[in-house]
Formats: sequence, structure tokens, C-alpha cells
Amino acid sequence: MSKKVVTFGEIMLRLSPPGYQRIVQAQQFDVNYGGGEANVAISLANYGLDSYYVTRLPNHEIGQAAVNALRRFGVKTDYILRGGDRIGIYFLEIGASQRASKVIYDRSNSAIAQITPEMIDWETVFTNAAWFHFTGITPALSDSAAQTCLKAVKVAKENNLTVSCDLNYRKKLWSPDKANRVMTELMDFVDIAIGNEEDAEKVFGIKAPGVDVTTGELNPDAYQPVAEELVNRFKFQKVAITLRQSISASDNIWSGVFYDGKQFYTSRRYNIHIVDRVGGGDAFAAGLIYALLDNRDPQEVLDFAVAASCLKHTLPGDFNHVSVREIEVLLSGNVSGRVQR
Amino acid sequence: MSKKVVTFGEIMLRLSPPGYQRIVQAQQFDVNYGGGEANVAISLANYGLDSYYVTRLPNHEIGQAAVNALRRFGVKTDYILRGGDRIGIYFLEIGASQRASKVIYDRSNSAIAQITPEMIDWETVFTNAAWFHFTGITPALSDSAAQTCLKAVKVAKENNLTVSCDLNYRKKLWSPDKANRVMTELMDFVDIAIGNEEDAEKVFGIKAPGVDVTTGELNPDAYQPVAEELVNRFKFQKVAITLRQSISASDNIWSGVFYDGKQFYTSRRYNIHIVDRVGGGDAFAAGLIYALLDNRDPQEVLDFAVAASCLKHTLPGDFNHVSVREIEVLLSGNVSGRVQR
Amino acid sequence: MSKKVVTFGEIMLRLSPPGYQRIVQAQQFDVNYGGGEANVAISLANYGLDSYYVTRLPNHEIGQAAVNALRRFGVKTDYILRGGDRIGIYFLEIGASQRASKVIYDRSNSAIAQITPEMIDWETVFTNAAWFHFTGITPALSDSAAQTCLKAVKVAKENNLTVSCDLNYRKKLWSPDKANRVMTELMDFVDIAIGNEEDAEKVFGIKAPGVDVTTGELNPDAYQPVAEELVNRFKFQKVAITLRQSISASDNIWSGVFYDGKQFYTSRRYNIHIVDRVGGGDAFAAGLIYALLDNRDPQEVLDFAVAASCLKHTLPGDFNHVSVREIEVLLSGNVSGRVQR
Amino acid sequence: MSKKVVTFGEIMLRLSPPGYQRIVQAQQFDVNYGGGEANVAISLANYGLDSYYVTRLPNHEIGQAAVNALRRFGVKTDYILRGGDRIGIYFLEIGASQRASKVIYDRSNSAIAQITPEMIDWETVFTNAAWFHFTGITPALSDSAAQTCLKAVKVAKENNLTVSCDLNYRKKLWSPDKANRVMTELMDFVDIAIGNEEDAEKVFGIKAPGVDVTTGELNPDAYQPVAEELVNRFKFQKVAITLRQSISASDNIWSGVFYDGKQFYTSRRYNIHIVDRVGGGDAFAAGLIYALLDNRDPQEVLDFAVAASCLKHTLPGDFNHVSVREIEVLLSGNVSGRVQR
Amino acid sequence: MSKKVVTFGEIMLRLSPPGYQRIVQAQQFDVNYGGGEANVAISLANYGLDSYYVTRLPNHEIGQAAVNALRRFGVKTDYILRGGDRIGIYFLEIGASQRASKVIYDRSNSAIAQITPEMIDWETVFTNAAWFHFTGITPALSDSAAQTCLKAVKVAKENNLTVSCDLNYRKKLWSPDKANRVMTELMDFVDIAIGNEEDAEKVFGIKAPGVDVTTGELNPDAYQPVAEELVNRFKFQKVAITLRQSISASDNIWSGVFYDGKQFYTSRRYNIHIVDRVGGGDAFAAGLIYALLDNRDPQEVLDFAVAASCLKHTLPGDFNHVSVREIEVLLSGNVSGRVQR
Amino acid sequence: MSKKVVTFGEIMLRLSPPGYQRIVQAQQFDVNYGGGEANVAISLANYGLDSYYVTRLPNHEIGQAAVNALRRFGVKTDYILRGGDRIGIYFLEIGASQRASKVIYDRSNSAIAQITPEMIDWETVFTNAAWFHFTGITPALSDSAAQTCLKAVKVAKENNLTVSCDLNYRKKLWSPDKANRVMTELMDFVDIAIGNEEDAEKVFGIKAPGVDVTTGELNPDAYQPVAEELVNRFKFQKVAITLRQSISASDNIWSGVFYDGKQFYTSRRYNIHIVDRVGGGDAFAAGLIYALLDNRDPQEVLDFAVAASCLKHTLPGDFNHVSVREIEVLLSGNVSGRVQR
Repeated sequence: MSKKVVTFGEIMLRLSPPGYQRIVQAQQFDVNYGGGEANVAISLANYGLDSYYVTRLPNHEIGQAAVNALRRFGVKTDYILRGGDRIGIYFLEIGASQRASKVIYDRSNSAIAQITPEMIDWETVFTNAAWFHFTGITPALSDSAAQTCLKAVKVAKENNLTVSCDLNYRKKLWSPDKANRVMTELMDFVDIAIGNEEDAEKVFGIKAPGVDVTTGELNPDAYQPVAEELVNRFKFQKVAITLRQSISASDNIWSGVFYDGKQFYTSRRYNIHIVDRVGGGDAFAAGLIYALLDNRDPQEVLDFAVAASCLKHTLPGDFNHVSVREIEVLLSGNVSGRVQR
Repeated sequence: MSKKVVTFGEIMLRLSPPGYQRIVQAQQFDVNYGGGEANVAISLANYGLDSYYVTRLPNHEIGQAAVNALRRFGVKTDYILRGGDRIGIYFLEIGASQRASKVIYDRSNSAIAQITPEMIDWETVFTNAAWFHFTGITPALSDSAAQTCLKAVKVAKENNLTVSCDLNYRKKLWSPDKANRVMTELMDFVDIAIGNEEDAEKVFGIKAPGVDVTTGELNPDAYQPVAEELVNRFKFQKVAITLRQSISASDNIWSGVFYDGKQFYTSRRYNIHIVDRVGGGDAFAAGLIYALLDNRDPQEVLDFAVAASCLKHTLPGDFNHVSVREIEVLLSGNVSGRVQR
Repeated sequence: MSKKVVTFGEIMLRLSPPGYQRIVQAQQFDVNYGGGEANVAISLANYGLDSYYVTRLPNHEIGQAAVNALRRFGVKTDYILRGGDRIGIYFLEIGASQRASKVIYDRSNSAIAQITPEMIDWETVFTNAAWFHFTGITPALSDSAAQTCLKAVKVAKENNLTVSCDLNYRKKLWSPDKANRVMTELMDFVDIAIGNEEDAEKVFGIKAPGVDVTTGELNPDAYQPVAEELVNRFKFQKVAITLRQSISASDNIWSGVFYDGKQFYTSRRYNIHIVDRVGGGDAFAAGLIYALLDNRDPQEVLDFAVAASCLKHTLPGDFNHVSVREIEVLLSGNVSGRVQR
Repeated sequence: MSKKVVTFGEIMLRLSPPGYQRIVQAQQFDVNYGGGEANVAISLANYGLDSYYVTRLPNHEIGQAAVNALRRFGVKTDYILRGGDRIGIYFLEIGASQRASKVIYDRSNSAIAQITPEMIDWETVFTNAAWFHFTGITPALSDSAAQTCLKAVKVAKENNLTVSCDLNYRKKLWSPDKANRVMTELMDFVDIAIGNEEDAEKVFGIKAPGVDVTTGELNPDAYQPVAEELVNRFKFQKVAITLRQSISASDNIWSGVFYDGKQFYTSRRYNIHIVDRVGGGDAFAAGLIYALLDNRDPQEVLDFAVAASCLKHTLPGDFNHVSVREIEVLLSGNVSGRVQR
Repeated sequence: MSKKVVTFGEIMLRLSPPGYQRIVQAQQFDVNYGGGEANVAISLANYGLDSYYVTRLPNHEIGQAAVNALRRFGVKTDYILRGGDRIGIYFLEIGASQRASKVIYDRSNSAIAQITPEMIDWETVFTNAAWFHFTGITPALSDSAAQTCLKAVKVAKENNLTVSCDLNYRKKLWSPDKANRVMTELMDFVDIAIGNEEDAEKVFGIKAPGVDVTTGELNPDAYQPVAEELVNRFKFQKVAITLRQSISASDNIWSGVFYDGKQFYTSRRYNIHIVDRVGGGDAFAAGLIYALLDNRDPQEVLDFAVAASCLKHTLPGDFNHVSVREIEVLLSGNVSGRVQR
Repeated sequence: MSKKVVTFGEIMLRLSPPGYQRIVQAQQFDVNYGGGEANVAISLANYGLDSYYVTRLPNHEIGQAAVNALRRFGVKTDYILRGGDRIGIYFLEIGASQRASKVIYDRSNSAIAQITPEMIDWETVFTNAAWFHFTGITPALSDSAAQTCLKAVKVAKENNLTVSCDLNYRKKLWSPDKANRVMTELMDFVDIAIGNEEDAEKVFGIKAPGVDVTTGELNPDAYQPVAEELVNRFKFQKVAITLRQSISASDNIWSGVFYDGKQFYTSRRYNIHIVDRVGGGDAFAAGLIYALLDNRDPQEVLDFAVAASCLKHTLPGDFNHVSVREIEVLLSGNVSGRVQR
């Protein structure tokens, strides 16, 4: 299977102190590159799809290093624009036990935030493409980024691509009100909506009844009305939601639910001892896209996405360096971590 | 709140192999500086207090690096003496699972062990100060250090400072007999006593009934008679005791108890997946001092101290790099480690 | 106790990405040297035995570094041959949580695989020796290695050494059929057989009734008939089997069983939070050999072996850097990881 | 000597690949903090002066880490403002041989660039101060930074401080024209001007006759008319100029000239094998300020400044971690690098 | 300019101890991937050409990491075959001063050594291609690799590609006799020959009169008869030779000569302080190919190639991460390593 | 050649900041073990001699790691005593260019300093030994260490060993007066004296006429009267002196002279670009001992010693990891650092 999939968004330079240090302790930063849609693109390339990532990056060495990070793992960078002054940066402290991970964004005025709709020829980008994916981060970057996003989804639909959106609400980028307004307009062109246990509430005010996210316990069934309401309100074909129960920063219970407009599916739950949870949601989205493109059954689609994202948590960095085969080993029930030798 | 607090003791060069290596495997050592009272001073500086640390350090680059480690995180080093030949050193192997952490001390003849009472002008040091804190390690360093300590607490009381002492028994430094004799004399000048689940027994022979520390299970209520006996014997105003249940070197259950002379309080218990447990007790003492200076209720005092020290376990090094705000997030019940972004 | 023990096999260069990285992410590899019998030799040297390791290594710097790794930790390398073109290499990705560790072997045509029986003067090697140990890996390396192995065990028995063999089936080296044929011939000269929960089945078709290794749960009693059948078929004096229940790549439950031809013993079970599980079985074998040479009771022999190998899981690298005293602290029931200071 | 000296400017997060890697190769960045005036402040603290640094930094962990870097090495940070969104960042590739070091700035919209004149109470800052130092970088950051700078120098002169300015032309921040206009206004309040071999030409169009900087050879005497013209035009008391002959990125010849309004002095020349040349000019400025405050003779002032900055080139990072005593050892003619032991 | 260029050969895993350590000291290896033709391909991609690299790599993670290293820096890997058991490995000790760098090869039986002519469809590979480049290493790997090479050059010439060959004699791979025989047959299809100061002598017995390579001094003019003889004997269009004068492992003088069949050109000489000299010759070859494809004048072609390879020596790893623009800055005479900021 | 050689002295834990950092900058220390006589023992083991090192080390992990460092590189540790409280430590800042390396000793009260003469059975140690070597550091450690040393040389001479002594004056350990008194007594039993350009003057007041060590220039011939005077005064058979001209901390000129009681020999001079100069003198001593035991001609003895120590300067750590063959390649005139491949 080598269908062409396009994702669009911001890839950032990620700087994190090694070994559970806090920033005030660090004398070195681990260097990674990542961002919601870029992370999805990496996964899809790993799964053998023809994966294109569209963004705008400054024409200097850091911009080039971001391009290289994508190329290195097989993502096609042909449509990446070069220009602007800076790449977005985020500083990440990896949490442990009762200490949460901490993110400091320094992404204002990034090259992609300053993109304007006319910069990208979406007709060309979408030639022969089957799928377009973006997240709620991209329209949150700036008004012009939101307009560019809107143009993208319109052209995508005109060209009969499937469009998926991970709601991915970021309170440091915009208010719920603005998110609601901008995202609502975009949702008209979205076929498949993805979110975490909070996104629907934060962006669209659709709350899972009886759920208190901060207390940890998450009842999957509480998300059936959320999914139904999303489908009703926006005419989505399908809705998928990840459920993260945070025992602590070191241990999470991870699962997901999926509604295909007809039936509601819940996944198995994974008790994960975490290496790096950033990109977990993106790995879920990518697993979902792959499994849907592979025409799997709804339960299998959900299980694949959850298993793929479970494995992401065991890897440092934003990217999910696992293959379809490795996910299927986990799906087959082998969670024992036995070494093959 | 910027009350002046003074702590006095030994800061050591800490050398530890990275990544769970044993010393015989190591080709590099991580370099930290730490010691009971210095660790308390760092926490207090982080909480916004006017935090002074008093010690004696050799007049060479390693001594300077210890001063710098304190300055870096906001501790005032104006009263630190420079002289003597060497800084105390401790080698630390970080344990994991069934393998305990291991400490090798090389602290004999350190500059602070060779301190003599006349070297420090405590009147000056305590000018405008509200609190003096030391631990049982300082008088254990040498007879002249014990005498210096005795002089310090006397002057502190003459100047109406609150005096707190963390018993901190170190069997590698002195015998229970000597500890009992020296500490008993010092306790006359102490208002607030702090200890762990073993200290009262080791130093003063006051045992928690029915408790066997090596088996792991710790009953908080068993420490009420210990606290009462301490108050009765030494006229302490308050007594606080940390309770560490060691499931393994990787996982501990952490809590504390507090007796204000009237009532006995117990804290919530934290299941901690440990990054570095050294300095956990010091973080508790610092939390206690801060919360008392902040005039919190007894239960809040205890809870703040336990939460502060819980977070310490998630950080490499002796120092507790957390803010009042971060502790309060944990106190508010958010143990989920959710990332804010 | 300084009895002479000889082990024989392949030591490899082990290359592993640091910090849970996958190979495709790595810009550095941690360098270790290890291999089944070499790991046993290291343990035995740590326990104070006169531990000799026999192998063949190329006459270049990497070969020398392997010799040095053995010498560094007290193994006698006098009988190591130098020659051949290359040292075997294995690449190791350390797994975490649901992601299993992964091993890539690059060991074909190693110096030891090209050994021929006449190269080693076993009479000299076994002078004054009490014990010879090898694993099922050595005869699997090549036909000439198998022949050399056969000659070794024959000379060992002629010289009245106790011979132990860890079955250690490696499916990447040979088929069950070939393993069965070659190993059966060698078993005539073996006194003590060691294996993991799968080896007897893989090599000799002796299955533990009702056990499904991949599901995690392991019933120790199911291995009594396995041990009895092994003794019946091959006239072993004793059989020991390790039982690893893999909760995940991060957490295992570890135990063992022991059959001395008369009685069947089971050990306590350790819940291990894993640092590095490679060499766990070798640490068990070495513990068994030491405790038998020390004439301990059967239950004590098993308990020592299991405790020794439990500790191995907490150390990076193949080698088990622990002393008899440290094992006995664990055996005494102290699993709490309390720091002595 | 503990005179109070104040410097004002931007401190940045410096990120550099380790070991001569280029940015596109790097998986880790070394983390340092530095900036022209901050570097001067560090040197002055090392020399025992009462060294204050004024800037504005965001109220997050990276901002705090910058404060901590200053405190760690003895700089007083009492007047540092906290606010704004971001800290300036610069990426540095350390060059070697024919490959020049490369700097990528990402400093727009930093907290200090957004400073406005009313934010700082210069009267308070300059209380009891003897000296104020800034560089041409600070007014280049933004118009409001330039205005703040202008206010600072005015208040400084009103309070009878000596004012020094390192011209430090940065073509990536402003044009020669704008630099000329803004700097000319500031020069009215400057007593001591410092520059490198190009600054006077770039900012004020005052060229050393017969000198071609790019060819390497620099004739010290050619800078006498430059110094005289500067003094004539701006009424400076003194002018100092550093002369860097770049044999390559690895080897430079370093010297300086000094004009005290009466006589022209040249220094000895140091053949430097470079570890890190960033901050070399700042180390010169700091040496000059110290030696002038110490009332040394003009030739000694120049020699001290050149020797101090020579040593800077042998240290990684922006800061010059050397003492007056170490500089004087070099001044005494001992360039042999003999180890004392 | 985006002409398609194809190179063919072996890319190896390169393992080198960090920081001038010898292998026997190392606890970590720096991981790079490199090989003569791969290094050329990387340079050409950096220069904006459509650069394809052909090889065969095992279908496991190390093989994938080699592919990724190429993709990361823009080389097209579409024609890389996956199969075989292992990737070639070389261990590299970086020398210093009087200690030479040391290479240990472990490349026997690599996937590419086991290639057979029918595995590659050269017609497809060469579609629309302008240039084919290989080195004397590829035919030295095995007889079947030599046959595959022969087929490649034949098809290349049939398709009117320019064919260049870097003689690159490796005495650890074959004897001069065999090299002479195999290379002579290949030379029939080669247009442009490249070599170092020894290759023509080692492979074809063509010695530069009066030159003793081991003494360091190299007279460029002595290579004119060598170039002429090569052209006479093999009908090359052009011949280029690099001249390395090794002052020590840390300092080399680097230059080159070029003969276009009509005239003999010599380059300027660079005194290089070396970071990593591996890949220097490949950087020269790539510079030559680029400049010839860019239709530069002969002197410019040589100068470009020498400047490009000069810069390679300042970078760790096999690859030359420099742009055309950076080379041209050096060509313009700027060797001073001044920082632009 | 496998003659038994015994050396005796102190091995220390060496802690050095990586990458030219100063101690005040370091967050990690590189860990090495070294000391004058231990360094000699390592070299001799590398040269194939039966090399024994005698010392006293504490019975903890750091002591064990020092033993392991010796074993790793082939030194026999059978006679090393375990006991005492601590191992000597030295902190090393690696200098560069005009900044000298800096050593901070923390070696008081080390296990070896507290040795007493009766602890070592020298008769057993010297059984079948050919040579005994010590340095002037050992008797400087303490009076009892000096007495132990005196006993050692007496027993050595009684057993007809050749005794060599490297004067190795350490002003941080004792005064010239005390050194003179103690060393003079020891010299009665010494056959071969070794020193650097300053030792004879510092210890015995024998100055090279017209030499000023601090100015760099060293005239070899000036050391002929020094050598003759040493032989006259102490009846040495032979005297060897190393001559280090320090251009800077990065570049030295290294050579030596040798007087065999009849003739005076001077060596070639090496311009060394330094990686780590510690242990250079020890490498010279070891080369001398080896070449004398190998019965080489006087000029060859000197040349071998100088070449061996030249190579030491290119390696990190105290130990000289080079083989006889590698030294002979350098002796043969190949200083070019050409890579063999």
C-alpha cells in the first residue's frame, strides 16, 4: 500500500534536558524535531505510505535540520516552503512520578505562523493524494495560518480526499471561544475527527457526562454521547477519542474509543510505563489513518491505533519509530516484552 | 514572604555514576553538590525566603564550585568561610529495584569538620534572622563541629530565633551512644524536631511500638507515642517524622506525621517511582519550615512538607528545584502528571 | 574458597543505543562485552572463585578490548586464543513497557565460530579445575565449535570435573532439530542442566504441562515433570530452571525451580523493575555453580541463584557486578533498598 | 577592591553542537548563557568587583536559568526585570581551521528588546556605583532599547559614573547608517570607547589606513589615527581597540592598542590555539575596566586586558572564568602552560 | 542545476571512540555511516544535484539506519537493494599528533560484497542520468562486486554517462596485482580518473619521480608525468590527484593537481588543522564532479575540489556538510574564519 | 620477553572536566585512575613484561575500581594490599594554549600514605623479579611511606634487582630540603635515575648551567654536566632526563638525554600537539626500562623512551596505551600519521 497522504502544520525544534533534569539544572539539551502533523507523517512513512508533510521553515541550518529529520525517516519534503525568520521552539521537561512534564513554547512569529494562503499551491500538493490530515494546532498559530488551513481543506474536499482533523486544543495558543469559532468553520470539510478526553469539551463544549479528567478515572462509555454529538453536529463520518488515565507522569493507562456513525467501539487498555509521552496522540491518529486506508474493520482500526500509540510512549522523541509488523505483534497479545534471539 | 533563615552544616561534592551503573563500571561521574542543611537552604531559597547557608570550604576550585552551586539557586553565601584543605566527598550509586543505593563517604578532615567555635560570628549571622536549622550530621562531623553547633544554637536562642533540628542519624559518623550524649545537650535549644522512621530510636532509644522498619510496612499511628515522648523529654514545641516504606529502591511509599504538642496529624501517602531519593528528608524539613513560617494550619504544614519532599524524589541531584506553586498543584490533588500546553 | 572453574564460549561486542533509543535514532552506542559463558565467568570471579574463561578472539584492538573487559573484573584470560578475523557483535535495543528488547546478531564467522578441536589443549586448561561450564550457544556457533565443545566435556569428565550446561536455545543460530541432535550427544557428559522456561521444550521437546509462556503466567509446579524427565533421559544429577513472567519489558516476575534428583524446590518470586535483563540467566547459572561449590543446601542453592540473578536485572550491561555479601543481604529478606549511611 | 559596576544588555540562551559538529549533525546542544554585557559582568565578578547586570528576562524556567547562570558566578541580579515572552537565542557552530564559526540569531521580540525607558529606575541602579558599561548591541535591539540605553547613560553621567561602551557592531541587527545615527547620540555620554579592528569603520566610517581585515595581517600602528579621530570626534577620554588576526578558525593572533588621549600603546601579541573565541572582546573590555578602576598605568591596563582576553579563548562558553591572579601569571611572561604540582 | 548523478559502492557502519580515546579505552562509540561513493553522493546532494546512491543493505535496523543517514542529507535511496546478512563495519580511532588514525575493517560478507550482477537493473538506474561515479573499493569487495561494477560502467557508457573513478587503493582488500588486473579492465569505461598521491603507483605501478610519500614533502610537478601516463595508458579525458602532506595526524597540507589532457594545473595549498580526515578524498571527487558538471574552467574545477575537501577535514564523520556557497567563500580567499554576526 | 618488573607507589582517582572546561563549569567528571608508578606498570604490561604493581587501597568500590583499572590493562595486582580509609584523589583541569593545566590534590591520609614497612613482604614480592621502579612521589607521601620505600630498595638490591627511580619532585608534597634528605638516603640503592628538566635542581640542587626552564628554550647539552654530577654523587649506572619545552599548554617540544656513565646521548625532538600530557614522564621511564631490559643500544634506549612518551601525549588519561610495534613505527621515522587501510 503506498497511497499518498498529506499532512500540514508546524514542526518545531524540541529541546529537552536529559535524564529527568529540570531546565534550571541542564547543561545540555537533547535535540529533537516534532509537531503534531509531522509526527503523523513520520508514522505514516514508517507504515509504507507515500507520506508528504507541508510546512514553512526558515532558510537556515535549523530549518534545514528540521527538513532532514523528516527526510531521515522517509517523509517527502518536496512541498516544504523555505522562508521566514525562525522555527518554532519548545522546551520540554520530562516529568516523573508526581511531577508532570512541562512544556514552554517559544513559537510566536515562526515561519509557518506567518504563512499566507497564496503561498501554497494545494492543487499540486493534493495531486494523486488520498488523504489530508491536520490538527487544531495549525489554525491556532495565526489568522493567516487558519486561512491557509481553510483553503487546504476546501481544495482537499474538491479533490475528493478524505480529511481528518485531530482537534488538539492548545490553551496556550488560543481561547476556547476563538477555537470554537475557527474550528467550527473548518469542521465542515472534515470527515474524521480525532480528539483526546478533553478536546471536544474544550473546543466545542461537548462534555463527557460524569467524567472528571483530573481525577484520573475515565469511563469509556461516557464518550459515546460525545462521539454521537460530534457526528450529529458536524456530519463527521467517524470519530475517535483517546483516553489517557494518568496514574502519574511515569504510569498511564491508555485506551481509545471509536464511533463509525453506527456503532461505538472501545479498545483494550494498556498500562504503560512511560519513556516519553509526547506524540502519543499523533501516533494514535496515524494508526487510525493507516488502518482506515487499509480498510480494516472498525474494531481493528481502533485497536491498531491504540497499539501504535501505546508503543510510542516507550520511545524518546516525538516520532513513533515502529513498523506495522511491530504493532501487530503487540495486537496479537504479546505484551510480555520477551526478547527474540 | 522574605524572612531570613540560616542553616549550617557540610556541603559535599557528590559523585555518582550515570544511568544505574555501579562505580566499578563508571567512566564518568555526574557532579552534584549537596548536604542536609544545604539542601534545606536551596528549597527555602526556591520558596522565596532569604536563605543563608553557613559552612567552611577550602579556598580552591572545588570549594568555589560548591559556593557557586548554592549561589546559582539563590542561596546567600555571604557567611561561608574559606579555608581548610578539602571538601567532603560522597560517592553515590543510584540503586534500582532490589538493589539499594549505596553511599561511600570520604568526608574526614573536611574544612567544615575542622571548624572551631570562634571562627564564626553567630551574632552577625543571626542579625534579623527568624529561624536556624541544622541536622544531626553537623555535630557528628567532629567534636569541634559539635561545639560550634552548640554555640550556634545558644546564640540563636538568645536572639529569639526558632531552632529546628533534623536528627538525621548517620551510623558511619558516630555511635548511637555518642550521638545520644551530644544531641541531648543540643536539644535543649531546639524548638522543632524532625526525624525519619528510625532516627528517634537510633539517637534517643525511642522506638515506635510494633514497627519493623526493614519489613517495609509502617503504621503512622505507631509514631504518635514517639512524638509525644520526644516532646516530653526535650520540651520540643513540635515534632515531625517522615515515613518511608521501601517497596524497592525504585518504588517507595512516602508520608509523614506531625505532632504540634496538642494533636497528632498524619499525611496522605504517595506512591513514588523514584528518580533520586537523596535529599528527600531535607525537602521535607524545608517544606515544614516554610509552611510554619507561613503560619499554615498544622495539617497544611504537614501536607506541604510531604508534597514538597514527594516531588524531590522525581529530580536528579540533592536539591529540590520546585516552587511553592508546583507543590500546591500537587496538594490540590493533581497527581496525574498531565502536561499543560 | 578459590576453586578453579572454567567456562568456554563466545564473548561478543555489544552495541546498544543509550536511553531507550531505537537503533535508527542512535548517534552513539554504549559499548559492552558479553556472552553467556563469559557472563558466568565474571560472576564467579566476583564470588572469589578462580575463574577462567576460554574463547578465541581476533588479534586486534576490539579483540583486546574483550580480553580487557574480562581481566578488568578478575577473570583469568590465560587460555584465550588470539586469531581469526572478527569478533561476534550484537546490537541491542533496550525495550520498555510494551516494547520488547530487540537483538540483532552479527556473529557469523567470528574467531570462536571458526575454532577447531585441536586448537585448545583441554588437559592443560582443566589442570586442578573443579568445574566446567558451557551453554547451548557454543555448539550452535558452528560444527567445529560443537566438536570442540564435545572434546571439552569429554576431557572434563576424564578429569573428574563437574560439568554444567545452560541449554540456552537460540533459534537464530540453529533449528530445534539440529539443537536436539547435537545437544543430546553432549548431555552424556553433563552433570547439571540449567534452562529457562522454554529451553527444555525447544531443545528436547519436553514441555511443561499446561504452561503457555507467551501469556505470562508461569506455574512453578508444572516444571517438576520437566526436571524429572530431563534427569531420567540424560542422567543429570541436578536440574535448575529459571521462570520469567514478563509483565512487560519494564517489569518481570522472576523465580526458579531446582530438582536435585530427589526433591523439587521452588524459590521466592521477585517483582523486578528492570534496568537490563540481558545476562539474567547467566547470573542464575553462576549463582547455582557457586552455591553448589560452596556445598549449600538445595533450597539455599536455588535461593542464592535466584537472588543473584534478580540483582543482575538492576545493572546495565551483561555482567553481574555483585558480591556474595550483597546477594546475602537480599536473601536475608531486605528488599527495601534502604540506603546505608 | 569592591567598587560597584553596572552593565546593561541582553543575555541569550546559547545553543551549540558539541565537538565541531554542524547543526545539521547535532543530536545534542551544549547549553550556555551569554551576551556582551553579561560576559563583562561575569569577568568583573571574578575580579572581585561588585558586579551588577541589568536586563529583562521572561518569567519562566529559561529566563530563570539565565539569572542562575549569572548568580552562579557571582554577578548581582537584583535589578533584573522579569517579564516579556521570550529570551533571545543564538545558535553557534564552533568552527575549525578553514571553516569559520557560524552564528544564527533568534533574538527578535526578546524581553529585553521590548524594554521601555520607564521600566528601569536608573537612579536606584546607579546608587553608589562607579562605572556603567554597555555595548553597541543593546541600542541595536530595538528603538525602545536604544531609548532606554540613552536614558541610562544620561543618568549615569549625572551620577558621575564612568561610562564605557564597546561599539560591537552587529550587521545582523542594524545598518551602518542607523548604527551611526543612534550611536553618535549615545557617544556624548561615553568616556571610554572600545572596539575591534572593524567597529570604528563600520559604525563611524573611521578606517585604519592600509588595513585589509580579511587578509589577516593587522598593523597596530594603523590604529593610532583611528583612536585619535575617535577621541577628537567624540571627546572620549580613552580608546581601546582589539586586533584579531585570524590565521584560521583554530589559530588567531591576538593583541590590542590603547590611546589615553596622550599616548598610544600597543600590547604583546599572543598566538592562540582557540577553544572558543566567543566573548573574547568582552573579556578585553572587562580587563580594561578592572585595570582602570585599579588605577594601573596605561601600558599595564592594556596588557591586563589583552592577557585576560587571551585566556578567554581557551575556555568553552561565553564567560571568562579566570582570576586576576591567573591573568597576572600570564602577564609575568609564563606562557608555557607548565603544570604546578 | 539538478542533473542526476549515480554513485555505487559500500556504505559502512562507522564506530569510533569519542575524544581521541583508543578502542581499548572506549565505553561509547560515536555512530556514523560512510563509504567512498556514499560520501560523494552526500556532497553532490548538498550541492543541489539529483544524487542517487546504489548499494545493497541488510533488511534490519542497522541497514535501515544507513539508508536513513543518506536520506537525511538528501541522497535518493530509491535504488538501494535490501537483503543479505550484514552491513560492513569499520572501527576508527581518530589519531592525534604523532599517533596516526587507525582503521579496523570488519566488512567481509557484507550485503554489498555478496551482490551479483543481475541484481541491479542498471538501465533503470541510469535513466536520465548524466554521471556515474565509483571507486576502486567497490570492485575490491568481491569478484561478484567487481563483475557488477563492470556491468555498471558498460551500461553507463552505453547510455552516454560520464564515468568517473576514484582509484582508492585499499591494501587490506586486495593485492596490487589483483587490483591492477581488475581495475585495468574497468578503466576502459572510465572518462575521469581520480587518485591520491599513492594510488597510481599502487594500482598501476605509475610512480611520481623523486617522491617519497612517507617523508611528507610532495612536489606537485612530479605528478604531471603520472597524470600524462594515466591518460596515455587508459584514454582518460581527465585526471585529478590529491596531494596530502602529513605533518602529523593533527596537521596536514592539502592540495591537488589536475590534468585535462592538455594542460596541467596545480592548486593552492591549505594548512589544515584536522578534525576528521576521513572522507577528504571523497569530498575532492565530489567537488570535481560538481564543478565539471557546472562547466567551470579547469583551474576553477581543481580549486573548487580542493577547497571543498579542505573543509571536509574540519567536520566530524565521513560526510562533507558544506554548501557551494561556503566553498566559494573559502575560494574567494577568506581563510580567516571570521564569524559573521 | 616476560621479565618480572615491580613498581610501587600511589594510584589515585583522577577527576577531570570534559572538553577543556574548568572545574567551576563542570557537571560531569571524566574518571580515570593513575599515578607515577602505576602508569609505568601499565606501559610495561603493554610491552609484554610481567608487570606487578604494589600499593595499598581501601576495601571499597573506588579502591576496587583502581585495582580493576590496572587489571584491565594487564598489570598484575596480586600484591596490592586492601585497607585504609580512602584513595588519593586528584582533580585535573586540562589546559589549552596560554592556560596551563591545573592539578588539585586531595591525597592526604590515603591508604598508601598510611602504609607501614611491615605491611609488605618484599621478599615475596621480588621473587624472580628483575627490576624495581619507584618515583620520588612515594617517599614524599609520608614518613612511613618513605620507610617502606627504603625497605623496598634494600630488599631489591639484596635480591639483585635493578632499581630505577624517577625523581619526580612534587612541591605540594614536601620541601626541597626534606626531599633532598630523604631521597639522598634512597639513592644509595638506585641504579638508574630518571628526571625531568627541573628535578635534579629541585631535589639535589644540581642546576643545568644557563637554562631557564620558564622561558621555554632548553639546551640538551646543558644537561650533560647534570647527568655527570648525578652519577658522580650517587654512583648511578645511568641517568636519563626528559626535556619539555612548553610552547603553550597545547604545543610542546619533547625530547630527552641519556648518560650511560660513559657517553652522553641526545634524542630527536618531537613537536607535539597535546591531547593529555599527564603521564608523559612515566611513559618515558617505562620506555627506558623496557629498552634496557631488552638490551638495546644506549641511543636506541633513549630514542625508544622518547618516542613512547611522545605518543602518550596523544592519548587521554594517565596510561600509555601503545604497543612496542607502534613505538617502532614512530621510531622508523613515520611521523606523518598516515592511515593504514
